[in-house]
Amino acid sequence: MSDLPRSVHLYEQGPREGFQFEKGPIPTARKIELVDSLSRTGLKQIQVCSFVPAKNVPGMADADEVAAGFKRHPGVRYEALSLNEKGLERAITSGRFDTTGIISLTASEAFLKRNQKRTLRENYEAQHGMIEMYQRHNVPVDRGSIMAAFGCNFEGDISVERVLNVTQQIFDLAEEHGLTIKTLNLSDTMAWATPLSIKRVIGAVRDKYPEQRLSLHLHDTRGMAVALAYAGLEMGVAIYDACVAGLGGCPFAAHKGAAGNICTEDLVFMCEEMGVDTGVDLDLLIEAARLAEDIVGHPLPGSVMKGGTLRALRKKVRAAA
Amino acid sequence: MSDLPRSVHLYEQGPREGFQFEKGPIPTARKIELVDSLSRTGLKQIQVCSFVPAKNVPGMADADEVAAGFKRHPGVRYEALSLNEKGLERAITSGRFDTTGIISLTASEAFLKRNQKRTLRENYEAQHGMIEMYQRHNVPVDRGSIMAAFGCNFEGDISVERVLNVTQQIFDLAEEHGLTIKTLNLSDTMAWATPLSIKRVIGAVRDKYPEQRLSLHLHDTRGMAVALAYAGLEMGVAIYDACVAGLGGCPFAAHKGAAGNICTEDLVFMCEEMGVDTGVDLDLLIEAARLAEDIVGHPLPGSVMKGGTLRALRKKVRAAA
Repeated sequence: MSDLPRSVHLYEQGPREGFQFEKGPIPTARKIELVDSLSRTGLKQIQVCSFVPAKNVPGMADADEVAAGFKRHPGVRYEALSLNEKGLERAITSGRFDTTGIISLTASEAFLKRNQKRTLRENYEAQHGMIEMYQRHNVPVDRGSIMAAFGCNFEGDISVERVLNVTQQIFDLAEEHGLTIKTLNLSDTMAWATPLSIKRVIGAVRDKYPEQRLSLHLHDTRGMAVALAYAGLEMGVAIYDACVAGLGGCPFAAHKGAAGNICTEDLVFMCEEMGVDTGVDLDLLIEAARLAEDIVGHPLPGSVMKGGTLRALRKKVRAAA
Repeated sequence: MSDLPRSVHLYEQGPREGFQFEKGPIPTARKIELVDSLSRTGLKQIQVCSFVPAKNVPGMADADEVAAGFKRHPGVRYEALSLNEKGLERAITSGRFDTTGIISLTASEAFLKRNQKRTLRENYEAQHGMIEMYQRHNVPVDRGSIMAAFGCNFEGDISVERVLNVTQQIFDLAEEHGLTIKTLNLSDTMAWATPLSIKRVIGAVRDKYPEQRLSLHLHDTRGMAVALAYAGLEMGVAIYDACVAGLGGCPFAAHKGAAGNICTEDLVFMCEEMGVDTGVDLDLLIEAARLAEDIVGHPLPGSVMKGGTLRALRKKVRAAA
């Protein structure tokens, strides 16, 4: 009946993206509570926190405590974000994470210059150091990531050719260091994508690298995220980053009042209702979403936690019959 | 590059759907202000109000005053909803509307029984009376509408066969009265649709009635509306009902805290960014959306009015270059 993938893998990033973005302060115990709640939903991969300098991201100052406090659930892969050796060492030392290295490039030079004071070339060269750092610590590197792959607030539209060039650079870096990129993540960092550009960019990457497994990182700033994920599903993409309750946002993107990442439970709802297995218990995930709302203390953008599931309505209909 | 329609026609229903749903009271002058604001955006069809008993829908008690007060803009088709002869006469008497009759059936018998105390058969028979009423008043009848076409909170899933049967009933009614249905509207009244079910239902209707022009009425209760519209666009549907700022909701659907209709400016954003012409000035529409928020006095769900347009960002990028 459909060409959609039979199942998808969701990489939950709510605790990291969300608590990084919130003005806070959020008590450490409550951050741990959310991670533990998410662990019970059937999600197989959760990004718990980031090990970054507290002066840059105050919301992550308690990352070591969060790392120490959450309960590891069998079958779940736990991750932490780190951007330098200090952070990586904190992640490894905690002994709590399934640490993986990422070759991360950015398709927009203007974004790089603004946020990392680097040119595209300098950023490419800097990846050698990052890869060597991972290798020094025996951390496997099997992911690639392209930020701003669909457009940039500071550079404007990003051409498909640029994305293809950056993709090739990731493969070149991997090859030079004897690595294989299992998953390449395309990130719509600043919410420039449309369903059509998702199809065009993914189509172009697929044409050139037909065997490459792809994943998508989507933001809902302009209300497009679920439609973008649907376009991704139609292109066979079966891995999505997502944030419970729609937590998150990019603090560097200069948006005001903008929505965060694609909402995990809305994505799970769409997938499950279309027969695409997520492995996630939607009711438990909605519980986690409501918990997230309670923790941040303001409404979050997720829709299904407010509108309710169809499973609940079907049950009510059957009971009334 | 794409098979999407070159252009779409948007039927703005914010003033009617929105002010019907709001707890109110909203001053008449402000309702008129919104209609006038929408008239300047390039929208070609606006539903201004409904002529229904004030005891059922208190928010429409001032429909006659709203009708008398708004400024008709050349090239815009203005509509009012009426459900019986009294309402139709009010609409006609006002002399302010481009009144058209609709053959309206509902795919869910449980919904009909609950809200109109009718069976499917009784509702079918009642349409004869409605059509004769329109004809008595020389009102052209050239639209059909199927409510609850994708599922129902009180009946559950609705089969494609049911939708096809109801579609045929509309054509039978039309034929019996010497009418032609120019546009058939499929309504996801209670937000049960997925992008996949949009494609399946529209595909089935298309297979049986390849020449029939279709339109979609979508709700965003579960965050799917933009994705549903994208699925509709991929199926070639080029007419969408929408509500500025995401105003609206169905007061009879027993939802709590649920979002309203598909947001006009989010839909315009998606279409224009994909090269699908809407004829609408997005900046003026965002102004109208902000006005709607100001009028109802609480945040409305539209995203683009908060996240901003890409056109504005592109302009900023060019200016900085």
